Amino acid sequence: MKGSIELHKDRFIEELIEFLRIPSISALSEHKEDVQTGAKWVADSLKSIGMENVDVIETDGHPIVYGDWLHAEGKPTVLVYGHYDVQPADPLDLWETPPFDPVVRDGKIFARGATDDKGQLFLHIKAIELLMKENGKLPVNVKFCIEGEEEVASPNLVPFIEQNQEKLSNDAVVISDTSFIEKGLPAICTSLRGALAMELQVKTANSDLHSGTYGGGVPNSIHALVQLLDSMRHENGQVAIDGFYEGVPELTDELRAEVAKVPFNEDQVKKDLELDELFGEEGFSFHERVGIRPTLEINGITGGFQGEGLKTIVPKEASAKISCRLVGDQNPGDIYAAIERHVEAHKPTGTSVSLHQYIQANPIAIDSANPMIQTAADAYEEVYGVRPLFPKEGGSIPIVEVFSRVLDSPVVLMGFGLPSENLHAPNEHFHLENFTKGIETVCNYFRRLSE
Amino acid sequence: MKGSIELHKDRFIEELIEFLRIPSISALSEHKEDVQTGAKWVADSLKSIGMENVDVIETDGHPIVYGDWLHAEGKPTVLVYGHYDVQPADPLDLWETPPFDPVVRDGKIFARGATDDKGQLFLHIKAIELLMKENGKLPVNVKFCIEGEEEVASPNLVPFIEQNQEKLSNDAVVISDTSFIEKGLPAICTSLRGALAMELQVKTANSDLHSGTYGGGVPNSIHALVQLLDSMRHENGQVAIDGFYEGVPELTDELRAEVAKVPFNEDQVKKDLELDELFGEEGFSFHERVGIRPTLEINGITGGFQGEGLKTIVPKEASAKISCRLVGDQNPGDIYAAIERHVEAHKPTGTSVSLHQYIQANPIAIDSANPMIQTAADAYEEVYGVRPLFPKEGGSIPIVEVFSRVLDSPVVLMGFGLPSENLHAPNEHFHLENFTKGIETVCNYFRRLSE
Repeated sequence: MKGSIELHKDRFIEELIEFLRIPSISALSEHKEDVQTGAKWVADSLKSIGMENVDVIETDGHPIVYGDWLHAEGKPTVLVYGHYDVQPADPLDLWETPPFDPVVRDGKIFARGATDDKGQLFLHIKAIELLMKENGKLPVNVKFCIEGEEEVASPNLVPFIEQNQEKLSNDAVVISDTSFIEKGLPAICTSLRGALAMELQVKTANSDLHSGTYGGGVPNSIHALVQLLDSMRHENGQVAIDGFYEGVPELTDELRAEVAKVPFNEDQVKKDLELDELFGEEGFSFHERVGIRPTLEINGITGGFQGEGLKTIVPKEASAKISCRLVGDQNPGDIYAAIERHVEAHKPTGTSVSLHQYIQANPIAIDSANPMIQTAADAYEEVYGVRPLFPKEGGSIPIVEVFSRVLDSPVVLMGFGLPSENLHAPNEHFHLENFTKGIETVCNYFRRLSE
Repeated sequence: MKGSIELHKDRFIEELIEFLRIPSISALSEHKEDVQTGAKWVADSLKSIGMENVDVIETDGHPIVYGDWLHAEGKPTVLVYGHYDVQPADPLDLWETPPFDPVVRDGKIFARGATDDKGQLFLHIKAIELLMKENGKLPVNVKFCIEGEEEVASPNLVPFIEQNQEKLSNDAVVISDTSFIEKGLPAICTSLRGALAMELQVKTANSDLHSGTYGGGVPNSIHALVQLLDSMRHENGQVAIDGFYEGVPELTDELRAEVAKVPFNEDQVKKDLELDELFGEEGFSFHERVGIRPTLEINGITGGFQGEGLKTIVPKEASAKISCRLVGDQNPGDIYAAIERHVEAHKPTGTSVSLHQYIQANPIAIDSANPMIQTAADAYEEVYGVRPLFPKEGGSIPIVEVFSRVLDSPVVLMGFGLPSENLHAPNEHFHLENFTKGIETVCNYFRRLSE
């Protein structure tokens, strides 16, 4: 297989470049047609490798691309998920080469979407092509479900999964949209934190007031917001909202040991981020804090006068964006209600306070002992010569929990990215070594699943 | 005198309209020439009424206009201060008629600068004109010192006063740049709070970080800022900075009684501001809180993501604008140092914090028993039929303390504005009744000073 990958490598890269040229930015309405072009390109690509029932399924937003090949009787069925939409490219001036003009440099391909997720998605399509070429058939049944709204929180894929459970049924959902621990050290992520995001707004008087005339005598919306926000977290980093930690798994020695397996160089992290000290919940390591502990972070704050110099007003309104990462059995709905209660109970005198919810996603933990995952680990080990680790990621991919819950499938997060590949940032890239080894690993995995 | 004011009223208003047409916005560099035009207009106006030694004095910023008439031998010398610069006019769309196209409606003149301070300044010029016309001379010696930088904190007038103490020497500084308690109830302000303004900035990592990957494990600049700001004020409204209250006068029964003389309708204030409750330092009335107690207010705050929707980042920096109003013997420099110490002592883990000072101004209290003030009160009483009150204002006019300290003069704050005249806001206006009665009061005052 390695030989035939080598043989076709240049063409595969040419095709990936073509895919990466499409500015399929799902968040920006001026790119709506480009997203459509992306969907059509994926559908054509699936057809060209022999997938059947290929369909560009329109939604209220951007299309979902479906295709399958279901002739491996008695063999497992694998659902490959990925996304053809990409993040916006700004700030453009920080890109060394234009984001939608892909170039290969130092064994890496640079373009928006290179690692997230076009490169990682496309290696599955090419693995299937090679397997099909080799035997005229596939070792397993394969379904592709490729969406164009991952970067905008998958608003239409969730109902699509709920309404098409039979069509999408499978023995494992395979997703390549995560990354290695570091170069040469693969990872199968077995935990994703849930998410809950909201905006908190505080209003006081009906207009900004002169701080000379009124200062000291009327409620100040920023003081009130600051007081409310500060009441949500203790100085030791613990979240101070009643009920917040309900459902958080107890930290067993076993779990700590598993987390501690992932190497961590604190000095390097501090150096990279130019921080004197890290900070987080007392009594936990960095990887515990970002992997298996929940958190509440203020993402943005705004209020009053923000221009140059000063304007001595008592501001009439202020607001903050807040997001939580959740773990274990924490229920986003319950946590949101707890925050609502907290805000109501701590509302400062003379203020009116409102809370607006943006998103919520359940956390998910995946049992690394599941044979579908252990077999994937075997495939990595054969190709990379090292067994992958099973890290607990701090991020959220909401659709993973939906696949797991609605289709009752194990989800295998076979990432081929590297943490250093500028995901969501200028100069995003993907290492071609992991593109070709990724194809090899996927072929190996599907063959093993057939045994 | 009332008769001759009536006689000339229409012309006076025509001239005021001409003055108000000049968009002499000192804060905006594109209006630099307009500010020059304003200075020249004032100088011409002083010349036309018979003032001598009229001079447009260039500074590093906008000019100061000087003029005098010093032939009332043996009589007191009055220095009239005012400013010909105005605030910016935005938001323009909230003006019912354009800010620099003055119109008279319902007995009020609408324009930027109508009450602050062109209308109030111009009534002195017209009073002098009438006195001069009546007798061919003035009952007192008069000096005008009119600046074009009041709205940008008088950076060049302060050194000008220090360097021209002889030229500006006087027996009273008369300023009309404040307001009545309410329509028909005049006021001579006898206390102005000092001011101290600064910006507090908190930085953490060298870039915004993904709140999934890092959230909970690294310092968050907004959390840190919020924690710092919240530590500056107790929930009962008291400022929590060590040493902040040093120099604040003890609240005697006498002082409380004097403050309580100024009428206050709490229900009306709450209704006007659409507030359920007022809020301030525990144990003090509204007028005490805004008049004779110091305060610390957050005027603006900014940090992290502020667009629509959400972006789940751990923000790298956040900042807030803070201003204090000071009273009694509070020293702005000492207070600033106390805040610096507080910030350093409360700096959250993993953050770097900086403080930048904008302005400072000393508080001032004026003895209402001073004969220059009591005589002004007599003049008001004769014209308005009611004796003015002597309120303690919450605002700051930094130059008042400088006049008092450097020239050792009593300052007579003879305001003719009304608190409802939209100072610094759209649809600023000035009641023409107080324009004409103001001229009458000033004439009456100067005549009484001569007796």
